Amino acid sequence: MQGTFDILKKEGRAKRGVFHTVHGDIETPVFMNVGTVGAIKGAVGTEDLEKIGTQVQLSNTYHLHVRPGDELIKSLGGLHKFMVWDKPILTDSGGFQVFSLSSLRKIKEEGVYFNSHVDGRKIFMGPEESMQIQSNLGSTIAMAFDECPNSKADYKYVKDSVDRTTRWLVRCKDKITELNSREDTINKNQLLFGINQGAVYNDIRIEHAKRISELDLPGYALGGLAVGESHEEMYDVLENTIPYLPANKPVYLMGVGTPENILEAVDRGVDFFDCVYPSRNARHAHLYTNKGKINLLNAIHENDMSPIEEGCKCPTCQRYSRAYIRHLLKAKEMLGMRLCVIHNLYFYNNMMAEIRTAIENGNYAEYKRNKIQTMSQSD
Amino acid sequence: MQGTFDILKKEGRAKRGVFHTVHGDIETPVFMNVGTVGAIKGAVGTEDLEKIGTQVQLSNTYHLHVRPGDELIKSLGGLHKFMVWDKPILTDSGGFQVFSLSSLRKIKEEGVYFNSHVDGRKIFMGPEESMQIQSNLGSTIAMAFDECPNSKADYKYVKDSVDRTTRWLVRCKDKITELNSREDTINKNQLLFGINQGAVYNDIRIEHAKRISELDLPGYALGGLAVGESHEEMYDVLENTIPYLPANKPVYLMGVGTPENILEAVDRGVDFFDCVYPSRNARHAHLYTNKGKINLLNAIHENDMSPIEEGCKCPTCQRYSRAYIRHLLKAKEMLGMRLCVIHNLYFYNNMMAEIRTAIENGNYAEYKRNKIQTMSQSD
Repeated sequence: MQGTFDILKKEGRAKRGVFHTVHGDIETPVFMNVGTVGAIKGAVGTEDLEKIGTQVQLSNTYHLHVRPGDELIKSLGGLHKFMVWDKPILTDSGGFQVFSLSSLRKIKEEGVYFNSHVDGRKIFMGPEESMQIQSNLGSTIAMAFDECPNSKADYKYVKDSVDRTTRWLVRCKDKITELNSREDTINKNQLLFGINQGAVYNDIRIEHAKRISELDLPGYALGGLAVGESHEEMYDVLENTIPYLPANKPVYLMGVGTPENILEAVDRGVDFFDCVYPSRNARHAHLYTNKGKINLLNAIHENDMSPIEEGCKCPTCQRYSRAYIRHLLKAKEMLGMRLCVIHNLYFYNNMMAEIRTAIENGNYAEYKRNKIQTMSQSD
Repeated sequence: MQGTFDILKKEGRAKRGVFHTVHGDIETPVFMNVGTVGAIKGAVGTEDLEKIGTQVQLSNTYHLHVRPGDELIKSLGGLHKFMVWDKPILTDSGGFQVFSLSSLRKIKEEGVYFNSHVDGRKIFMGPEESMQIQSNLGSTIAMAFDECPNSKADYKYVKDSVDRTTRWLVRCKDKITELNSREDTINKNQLLFGINQGAVYNDIRIEHAKRISELDLPGYALGGLAVGESHEEMYDVLENTIPYLPANKPVYLMGVGTPENILEAVDRGVDFFDCVYPSRNARHAHLYTNKGKINLLNAIHENDMSPIEEGCKCPTCQRYSRAYIRHLLKAKEMLGMRLCVIHNLYFYNNMMAEIRTAIENGNYAEYKRNKIQTMSQSD
């Protein structure tokens, strides 16, 4: 049944699961590939994603709302049809971009007033607006509209912010329920994930986790992490908070992270991930291999006719050499960036497949230890 | 036998032929796709070229000499291996770039002294250097090192320049013969095409054509056209000069042109073409269709879910809509440019296939008339 989560195997808190959606099953743990404006940066199309093991494409609600506009996308049949991708799409709420990209914002009980980063025009976004936009896009999974408080914010501020986020979540659930019942809604099975906040205050996180669990949503995310706190603080939050989220629902750690972060988070019960690292690193010639990250601009690769990684099954490594890709990057040819993004996304997607196999085989602890150890090398 | 040209069918001066090379047969008339630094601009890889009917890839000797260096490419096994393309590659001589990109150049009998456009360092290039570089790259067809005089240059200047170009051609032939006999040469079957010059002075062109024909090279090009003169002047040169080139050798019109230019030039006996128009136009959202060029940035395409051209078999049109590609271009996503370049190159390659079929069927005149007429529409 869509929106349900089957846990196939467990090892400690690490889970091997399947999340059922109207756009197909998601095998977890999963890494979602970020296509901000409805396309992966680096000239990567959905036909490429099909070749590199992408299960879920993540798009940014705020960006698509500003351009080309969610109403246009709705009129054209929704985001799946627009970008030609029939597998699951997760849309964020727009909240994070409102808080990070816009200027002159004002947070009120009803929502947030802010100025567009494109043309400066005034925009209001609250829980209902975010749900409406995501419904217009017709994504598989919509994220709740929340405030992501600064990781250094004081206790009182975070407490009040989280209380408001809880009230906003109730409004999100009411709104999506109404939208899903409408005749002209593109995806009447759109799923809502709630978001746990609380910076690094475990008591706020736990209390919030308990309250939002009562809403019985199909999935829950942890937000406001990997935004300035240490890795240890993040792992501590995961260890303490996840036990208070429903055991039969997937857990999504937003915006995380390095391969090591993902390996550690899976061990603490996380099922969904997304991060711009693989594509952003690729655009700076930093490429992942099982022996650590390499910088392809280093002179050592100039005459190296081997692939980025021997044995890698990605379309880039199946065809091109380090020497050629390095030349393209030096000459600022777009093809170089495309080939690097394809490799790095494949590396992440493939690591998730390895993680799933390891949990199935009951040797995740060993896999994790080896992976972290071999990846700690680099050139 | 490699280097030979079989003419399968003629209609007036239009020829349907096959040019045999060590890297495979080239069906003519052919449009060569320009990959300046060993890659088509717009994040298009050789795996893409295989899908859009590309027969010959053209690379620029001057650019590759400056970066990454032809000696490096030779040490890695040559340009075919470097860019992973096993079909024919034609390299230009570097002469055109020397004359158009560099500053402070001095033309002497031995060759040209100029400053690199990348780092300003002094470079000398003459016939022997150009042949050496192209031999290092290991291209299928090497172009002779020539001077391309300004189309407005006076008669005396052009006459002297063409005389020197003839002397340079003899040196090119001697040098490539020597290089092809060397043990460590990558492509010992490298073919040399001579280049006819003479601006728009038909008598200089004709005299030059006669003299270079005596060298019995496997192919001949017309250079220095489409550089400022009118289309009529160019057609006039083609009509008057081509009859003085060997009838059993392919004729290559360098740097030309629009679809209409190509249709007219085929009618005057041209077999090979290359031009940056399709990729450059694509990068500016100008897309070719059989009903004329469209500008995809026009608002009319904002909600158009049809492909760039109905019925087009290119990978872009088989998957994506005008509305989506327009959105990508507006958002400056690289994927938009890639999809447009793929479409435009396919359009050109496909038009050449249509031209070949029309000549085979003996209805080229009719095909040309119809094509020019329908393409003269636009939005």
